[in-house]
Amino acid sequence: MKKVKFAIAGLGRIGKIHLENLQQMNQVEVVAATDTHTDGREFAEHKGIDNIFSSYEQMIKDSSIDAVVICSPTDTHADYVEMAANMGIAIFCEKPLDLNLGRVLEVLNLVETKGTKLMLGFNRRFDKEFLKVKNLVDQGAIGKHHLVKITSRDPQAPPLSYVVKSGGLFLDMTIHDFDMARFLVNKEVDEVYAKGATLINPELSRVGDIDSAVITLTYEDGTMAIIDNSREAAYGYDQRVELFGSKGMVKADNNLHDRHQLHNSEGSHGALPLHFFLERYADAYKSEIEDFVGSLANGTDSSVNGNDGLQSLKIALAANKSIKENRPVKVSEIDQNQENTMIIN
Amino acid sequence: MKKVKFAIAGLGRIGKIHLENLQQMNQVEVVAATDTHTDGREFAEHKGIDNIFSSYEQMIKDSSIDAVVICSPTDTHADYVEMAANMGIAIFCEKPLDLNLGRVLEVLNLVETKGTKLMLGFNRRFDKEFLKVKNLVDQGAIGKHHLVKITSRDPQAPPLSYVVKSGGLFLDMTIHDFDMARFLVNKEVDEVYAKGATLINPELSRVGDIDSAVITLTYEDGTMAIIDNSREAAYGYDQRVELFGSKGMVKADNNLHDRHQLHNSEGSHGALPLHFFLERYADAYKSEIEDFVGSLANGTDSSVNGNDGLQSLKIALAANKSIKENRPVKVSEIDQNQENTMIIN
Amino acid sequence: MKKVKFAIAGLGRIGKIHLENLQQMNQVEVVAATDTHTDGREFAEHKGIDNIFSSYEQMIKDSSIDAVVICSPTDTHADYVEMAANMGIAIFCEKPLDLNLGRVLEVLNLVETKGTKLMLGFNRRFDKEFLKVKNLVDQGAIGKHHLVKITSRDPQAPPLSYVVKSGGLFLDMTIHDFDMARFLVNKEVDEVYAKGATLINPELSRVGDIDSAVITLTYEDGTMAIIDNSREAAYGYDQRVELFGSKGMVKADNNLHDRHQLHNSEGSHGALPLHFFLERYADAYKSEIEDFVGSLANGTDSSVNGNDGLQSLKIALAANKSIKENRPVKVSEIDQNQENTMIIN
Amino acid sequence: MKKVKFAIAGLGRIGKIHLENLQQMNQVEVVAATDTHTDGREFAEHKGIDNIFSSYEQMIKDSSIDAVVICSPTDTHADYVEMAANMGIAIFCEKPLDLNLGRVLEVLNLVETKGTKLMLGFNRRFDKEFLKVKNLVDQGAIGKHHLVKITSRDPQAPPLSYVVKSGGLFLDMTIHDFDMARFLVNKEVDEVYAKGATLINPELSRVGDIDSAVITLTYEDGTMAIIDNSREAAYGYDQRVELFGSKGMVKADNNLHDRHQLHNSEGSHGALPLHFFLERYADAYKSEIEDFVGSLANGTDSSVNGNDGLQSLKIALAANKSIKENRPVKVSEIDQNQENTMIIN
Repeated sequence: MKKVKFAIAGLGRIGKIHLENLQQMNQVEVVAATDTHTDGREFAEHKGIDNIFSSYEQMIKDSSIDAVVICSPTDTHADYVEMAANMGIAIFCEKPLDLNLGRVLEVLNLVETKGTKLMLGFNRRFDKEFLKVKNLVDQGAIGKHHLVKITSRDPQAPPLSYVVKSGGLFLDMTIHDFDMARFLVNKEVDEVYAKGATLINPELSRVGDIDSAVITLTYEDGTMAIIDNSREAAYGYDQRVELFGSKGMVKADNNLHDRHQLHNSEGSHGALPLHFFLERYADAYKSEIEDFVGSLANGTDSSVNGNDGLQSLKIALAANKSIKENRPVKVSEIDQNQENTMIIN
Repeated sequence: MKKVKFAIAGLGRIGKIHLENLQQMNQVEVVAATDTHTDGREFAEHKGIDNIFSSYEQMIKDSSIDAVVICSPTDTHADYVEMAANMGIAIFCEKPLDLNLGRVLEVLNLVETKGTKLMLGFNRRFDKEFLKVKNLVDQGAIGKHHLVKITSRDPQAPPLSYVVKSGGLFLDMTIHDFDMARFLVNKEVDEVYAKGATLINPELSRVGDIDSAVITLTYEDGTMAIIDNSREAAYGYDQRVELFGSKGMVKADNNLHDRHQLHNSEGSHGALPLHFFLERYADAYKSEIEDFVGSLANGTDSSVNGNDGLQSLKIALAANKSIKENRPVKVSEIDQNQENTMIIN
Repeated sequence: MKKVKFAIAGLGRIGKIHLENLQQMNQVEVVAATDTHTDGREFAEHKGIDNIFSSYEQMIKDSSIDAVVICSPTDTHADYVEMAANMGIAIFCEKPLDLNLGRVLEVLNLVETKGTKLMLGFNRRFDKEFLKVKNLVDQGAIGKHHLVKITSRDPQAPPLSYVVKSGGLFLDMTIHDFDMARFLVNKEVDEVYAKGATLINPELSRVGDIDSAVITLTYEDGTMAIIDNSREAAYGYDQRVELFGSKGMVKADNNLHDRHQLHNSEGSHGALPLHFFLERYADAYKSEIEDFVGSLANGTDSSVNGNDGLQSLKIALAANKSIKENRPVKVSEIDQNQENTMIIN
Repeated sequence: MKKVKFAIAGLGRIGKIHLENLQQMNQVEVVAATDTHTDGREFAEHKGIDNIFSSYEQMIKDSSIDAVVICSPTDTHADYVEMAANMGIAIFCEKPLDLNLGRVLEVLNLVETKGTKLMLGFNRRFDKEFLKVKNLVDQGAIGKHHLVKITSRDPQAPPLSYVVKSGGLFLDMTIHDFDMARFLVNKEVDEVYAKGATLINPELSRVGDIDSAVITLTYEDGTMAIIDNSREAAYGYDQRVELFGSKGMVKADNNLHDRHQLHNSEGSHGALPLHFFLERYADAYKSEIEDFVGSLANGTDSSVNGNDGLQSLKIALAANKSIKENRPVKVSEIDQNQENTMIIN
C-alpha cells in the first residue's frame, strides 16, 4: 500500500492534535511540517518529522506531498489554500477560510477551477453524540423537523488579543453552531435574527465584541433554529442539541468527566462536562481527519466542503448585520461587499 | 374560626378543580356556584353546593359571599370582575382578564379604585419544579442571570372553534410562558421578537393562528429569554425551564408518569411526561388557590396581581405585532389602542 | 347509593392518613373511631366523627359498621381482628397481624372459618413506581426473571423504645421488602440467607437488633433476590427495585423532592429523595384503601390477603434464624413453634 | 532517555490491545513477541516487531528485554512468570496466575525471593468511573462504609470450550468483582456466601458451571458486599458499583454508546451500554499498562501485586466451596489443598 504523504502547517493546539492523529494512521506518512515559531518546529522534530520548514511556501514547493493540513492562524488560510490548490495538493483547512466573504469566494473559485479536494475543519460534525442525533433524524425518528435548539457555551473567554482578530463571537464561535444547524436540518437558512449583549466581561465591548447571544434562524422550509451562546459558562463547556419534529424529539446531552453520582444529606451530585473543545471533541478530531484521509484514498467527495464554509460565513455575517441593525436579515442580503467589522462598531 | 364564603363561576375543567380544592380546605365554605350549562350546575349540586345559579349577576347579588373564583369563558372575565369589584368581593380570576388591552386597563382601574383584592390564575408560578428554580435563583445560586430558556409544548392542539376565540397562540398559550419569564427574572421585558409558522396543522393558519413559535425577549437589564412553543408535541407535554447566570445554571425538567427504566436489547426506555396541564399542574392548582385563601385570611397582597396579567398581555400583543411586522417590537410600543386581531391577518 | 360504614382503630400517623383518605371517598362514611390516647380521639372529633370510643371492643359492639381499619399498635392486631371477624365485619389491618407465627395461624384460621374479608396493609404494592415494574414484568417485558434486587434504606432509625417491641429489623422493616419480593416475582420463597450487623448505632445491638442487613432469597423456581437494608441512610429514604430477566431489566428509581438540576463550577446537583414513607407512599396509602373499599363494593377478593402476611412473616422468621445460625434456612423449616425473639440473643 | 525494552507473550484480543498501547508510549520499545499461532505472529510482524518467536522460553532467553507482558492462555501463566522471574525480568501478567492455589503460592514465593516486579491485570481498577468512586470514598465523601454493591453482568456467555477450562464463573468472571470489592473497601474479606444457578443455558451445568450468581461478602470490619453476576444480560454489559456509608452513597453507572435521548409517543429512549469489556475498559487497559511502565521508570511498587491476585483467588475458591456446601465459608478455610474443580460436581 502506497502511503499518502502529508504536510502540516501550524503546530499550535489543533495542529498538534492533527499531527498525532495522522501519525497513528497506517495509510499516512507525515513528511513535512511548518511553523513560524520555534516551539512548533521543535514539536515536529520531537515527533520525528523529517522536513521542517519556517516558511509554508517553501514547504509546499520543496516537499513532494499529496495533502496538506492547514492549522495556521486564520489570516493565512486563504493564501495557503491558494498555494496548495495551485500545486494540485489536497487540502484540509481549519475553519474559517477567511473572515472576508469576497476573499472566500475568490479562493473557492480557484479551488473549483483547479479541481482541488478541500475539506474544512467543522469537527463537531464528527462528534459521536451529534452524529447519533443526525442519524436518527435522517432515519425519520422524529418525522418532519420543526425546530433545532443548540446550546453552545464556552467555559471561558479567550484573551482580548485573540478576540480582536477573531471577527467577533459569530464568526469565531457561533460559526460552529451555524454549521451544526445546517448539518442537522440539511436545508439552507433563509433569515437570521441575532440579539446579543456584553453581560460577562465589559472589556469585550470595547473591542467591538459581545459575550452572550441568542440567534434565531429560519430555514427555507419554515424550520426554525435557536442558538444560545456564552463566552463563559461557570459550570463548564455546554454543548447540547435538541431537534423537535412531527413524531418526536431527539437530544444530545453533554459529555461528562465521569458518570459518578454522590448522594449525601444535601442531595445528589455529579460531574462537570468535559472541560473544553480539546477534551470534548478529541474523538471528533480523530474521526474528521480519518474521514479526510478516507476520501483521499477512495476518491470520494469531501464530507465538509467549501460551500459549507461559505454558507456558515454568510449566516455569521447576517448575524453581525442583524445585531447592528436590530432586525431580521435575509442571508441573501449578504454579498461579497458585506463588510466584516466587529459586531459593535 | 369563621370560614371564608366562596362562590365559583364556571364549572368547566378548571372550575371543577378549583371547587374540589376549595372544598378540602377547612377555612373555606363554598356557598354558591353558577354555570350557564346544566352540566356545570349538576356538578355543583353533586358537590353539595347549596345555592346554584344560572346567572352570575344574580349569584353575586343574592349570595352573601366573601370571594369569587371566576373560571367562566374569557369573554366574561372583565364583566364578572367588575361586578364583583363593585360589590366589594375578593376575586380569583383565571387568565386573561381580557384579550383587549384597553378593556383590561379599565377593569384594573376599577379594581384599584375599589381596593378589591384580585389574584390571577397563573398557576405555573406554584409548580414545585419552577418554584425550586425560582428559589435557587433568588438565593443567588446562579449569580447574575444572563438567559432564561423556556420550552413549552402542548401534546395536542385545541379544537379550531376554541382557537378562533383564543386570541391566537401568544395570548392563549405563550402568555403563561411570558408570565413565567417575568416571574423567574423579576425584571420587566423591554423588547420582543417573535417568529412563528404553521408547521403542524395548516387549518390553523386559515383562522389566523400559528402552531409553532420561537420568541426572544430582552429585559431592561440586558437579560435575554428564549421561549419555544408548539401546539403539538408528539412526545407529550414538554414543560421545561433553564436559567443561566454568572455562577451557574439551573433547570427544571419534565415530570414523568413514573420513573421506571426498562433496559433491553434495543436500549433504555422511560416514561412519557405527565399528559397535559391538568395532570402536570394538579398540585399547582391546589397551591395557588390555597395561596389566595391565605392572602384573604392574612390580609396580605395577592401573589399574582392585575399588573402581572397586564404585563404578560402587553408582551403577547408585542409578539403578535412582531410576527406581523417581522421586526423586534418594544413593549412600550403597545398601548391601549393596540388591536388584538389574530396573528396572521 | 348506600355508603359503606367504616370505623377506624388507632389514630397515630398511619391512622390519620387512612381516615383522611376514607373521608374523601364518596362511597364511604366513617362513623366511628377509637384510640386509647386523648390526642387520637380529639383528632377524630376534629374530623367530624360522630362516635368516638376509648375501647375498641365497645366500638365494635356498639357501632353498626361494615368495615374496620386497624392501625393500633402491633400487639393489639390479632385480638382486634378476631373481634371483628366474630362480628362479621370486614377488616383492613396494618401489618403484621402478629409477631408470633402460631398466633397468626390461629387468627387466619378464624378469619377463614368466618369467611371474613381481610386485607393487610402492604402499601408499597400500590406505589406507582413498583406497580409499573410489576406490570412490565407481568407483560413479559423482561422475559423469564432471574434476579430481583431491592434497596430499602430508611433515613433514620426509630427510637429504641419502638425497636424493642418491633420484632427486630426483619419483622419490622424488611417484611415490606419480603412482601415486595414475593409480589414482583409471584412465586414462593424457598430459602433465606441473612447477614447483618450493627454498623450505625451500637445501642441497637444491646436490645438485640441490627441496623444493616443483606438478605439473599431463593425462590422455588431458582429465581434469586437480594435485599439490602439500613436503618439510617444519610442521603434519605432509598427505595429502589431492579428486576433482571432473560430479555432485559427493569428498575424503579427513587422519587425525589423535585427534578431540578443545578450546575455550577463544582458539578451538577439534584434533590434528595422524598423524606420518608409518609411522603414517598402518600399516594400508595390512598390507593390501597380505595382498593379495599373497591373490593367491598364489588365483592371481589382482597388484593393482599392473610396468606400474604403469613408468608412474609415466615420469611422474616427464617431470616432471624439464618442470622443466628449463620446458615441458609429453608422457609419450610419455620413452623408455629418458631420463637420470635430479637435477632441477636 | 533510554527506552524500556518489552516483550509480549500471546497476541489474542488482550495481547493486541497491550501491544498497541505500548507502541504509543515514548518511553517503551517493544522488541519481541511470541505466539503459538501464526495469526498472532503475523499481527506482531504487521506491527513492526523485530524479533518474533513461537516459543516463550526461547524469547525470554534470546531477547535482551526489561519487561514482559503475559497474555497467553491461563495455564501458561505460572510457568511463564517463573521463567521471567528467574531471568530478572519485570512481569505484567493477565489474571489469574493460576487456578490452583498451591501453584500460585509457589510462583509468588519465587517472585518474592527473586525480588521481581510483578503486576496483575486487574484492569477495572483503572476504569475512570470506578476510580472516581474509589477516590471519593478515600476522601471520606461517604464516611465509614457499610455496604458495597457490584452489578457485573456479561452480554453473552463464552463458548463451552472456554468455560470448561475457565475454572467456572467465580474464578473466571467474578474474580474481577472480588478484586474490585477488595480495592474499593481496602479491607480483607472474612467470609463468603455464594448462591448460584443455571438459569440461562442448561448446557453450562453439564460442564459443571453456573450462569447466574449472587455472592455476599463480609469484611473483617463488618462491611458487607453483594455481587450479582450473569453470563448473559440481554440489555448489554452491565458494570455498576454502589458504595453506602455513614455519610452518603456513591455510585458509578454504566458507560453508554452515546448519551442521546429520543422522545416519542412511546416514551423516552436511550442507548445501550458499551458492548463488552474491550469497549468499556479500552481506556483502563491503556492506563494500567502506563501504570506498569511508570512503576518501572520510577522504581515504585506495583499498583496490583501478587497478593491481590492471591486474595481474589482465595475468595473465588471460597465461593466455589460455599455453593457446593450451601453454607457461608471463611476465607481462612481456604488453603493450598483446596481443590479447584468446577462449581457443580
